[in-house]
Amino acid sequence: MHDFSFSTEVKVRFAETDAQGVAHNAAYLVWYEVARIDYLARFRGGYHEIRAEGMEALTIEAHVRYLAPARFDDRLRIHARLVDLRGARFGFEYSIERDGEVIADGWTKHAVVDRLTLRPTRFPAWLAEEIASAETGSS
Amino acid sequence: MHDFSFSTEVKVRFAETDAQGVAHNAAYLVWYEVARIDYLARFRGGYHEIRAEGMEALTIEAHVRYLAPARFDDRLRIHARLVDLRGARFGFEYSIERDGEVIADGWTKHAVVDRLTLRPTRFPAWLAEEIASAETGSS
Amino acid sequence: MHDFSFSTEVKVRFAETDAQGVAHNAAYLVWYEVARIDYLARFRGGYHEIRAEGMEALTIEAHVRYLAPARFDDRLRIHARLVDLRGARFGFEYSIERDGEVIADGWTKHAVVDRLTLRPTRFPAWLAEEIASAETGSS
Amino acid sequence: MHDFSFSTEVKVRFAETDAQGVAHNAAYLVWYEVARIDYLARFRGGYHEIRAEGMEALTIEAHVRYLAPARFDDRLRIHARLVDLRGARFGFEYSIERDGEVIADGWTKHAVVDRLTLRPTRFPAWLAEEIASAETGSS
Repeated sequence: MHDFSFSTEVKVRFAETDAQGVAHNAAYLVWYEVARIDYLARFRGGYHEIRAEGMEALTIEAHVRYLAPARFDDRLRIHARLVDLRGARFGFEYSIERDGEVIADGWTKHAVVDRLTLRPTRFPAWLAEEIASAETGSS
Repeated sequence: MHDFSFSTEVKVRFAETDAQGVAHNAAYLVWYEVARIDYLARFRGGYHEIRAEGMEALTIEAHVRYLAPARFDDRLRIHARLVDLRGARFGFEYSIERDGEVIADGWTKHAVVDRLTLRPTRFPAWLAEEIASAETGSS
Repeated sequence: MHDFSFSTEVKVRFAETDAQGVAHNAAYLVWYEVARIDYLARFRGGYHEIRAEGMEALTIEAHVRYLAPARFDDRLRIHARLVDLRGARFGFEYSIERDGEVIADGWTKHAVVDRLTLRPTRFPAWLAEEIASAETGSS
Repeated sequence: MHDFSFSTEVKVRFAETDAQGVAHNAAYLVWYEVARIDYLARFRGGYHEIRAEGMEALTIEAHVRYLAPARFDDRLRIHARLVDLRGARFGFEYSIERDGEVIADGWTKHAVVDRLTLRPTRFPAWLAEEIASAETGSS
């Protein structure tokens, strides 16, 4: 697991809880996505720009470890970092913190595809470069 | 409120409950949509066919009355009926029943639009005719 | 429709969009709930405090008008106001704005109940008083 | 990966799609849960009975591989099987099939806890026995 130079915040919504009284396990994948989008938004339009250039980023694998339940109205800090960028593929790693305690972590893998053909296509070079210098600059 | 000649069933998912221990209020709009789609599916491809012909049906108004809470694993019968078809506009009425008791009802209003321009366009004639004869035949 | 003295912001999540490319109609009820909770949070613990005192607020009716589609990543301002407080019942009114344009509005009705018996119980007096002076002070 | 003796069906809901035009990645965790609940429902009340006996089953890890996108209205067969039952811990394995093609697979891990204390507690013996004889009988 790498160090994280980026994080974003979500507050657990009542709609995200279930009858166990805690956040539902599927909500974490939504928060991971929120973190990915906020992560990329720092770079020239981010995910919008990727889509505007005719590409989509599909999720091809996802993994979550639930270490302690999240509850309604908890403020969660989602740390995220892009990793393993190679050709059309890239990954993200996540760590979810509440008041300094890690309550979940995980990772996702993605493939960049052409929006129309759904064929794999290279990760945009401009974005790879901006991310590389941001991650290097921050460590 | 009209009589209903069509209904479909949903079972309350655990993910649809919230920390009150009952189904979340937004889940009912998802069930209404399930019912609309099952309602239309009886007519030559239904919603798929509408989309295949280059149209979309937007939701422009929604109303729900929650009469008694729905709980995890409840089998709910969603009665639905298309009403007030006029030009590009149409509506749906719903009644949700559990073991013979009505636990919610409501209605939605919709507009048929061209998928590309999002301009209003007439409800497909073939579908209007099929629905008219189905609703007449059933009453 | 009253004037609004309170508002909160949501950003449309990718998970909230559907295959029409716009925010799904059920997401608006989740945003209304986010606004209710943020509205109440200004008063001594808000919804948490209501639940801590052994009460729940059930949603008994909901209404949404969709005036213009919301899209991925749109920043939406949700205006909300508590209205019609009487005994165990109260309502909320909402207006959703994007860049100064109202793209949706609506209202919900609620009943305060005892968490265990689910019997109606009076809206907490301390909260009613705080809301009354806040709403008066702001207009 | 084991053979599966149990499966259940879901139809992709419109609300489960996103602006990529395919089912959102978080929906798969909801379908896994639907499959777990249907799997257990064959045994004396299943998950209801577990909760009625004062226990909860928390999700402590989840993994999904997305092999091909699921689309609106697709009929998906979710194969599921309980594995690795030991003390308070158990797992589930899943395979999602559309028209005979595997479009996703994955697994989840769970812990049985006391509903009030949230302390780990043994998986109910009666359920372990019924599952063991069902899985043996079927292979």
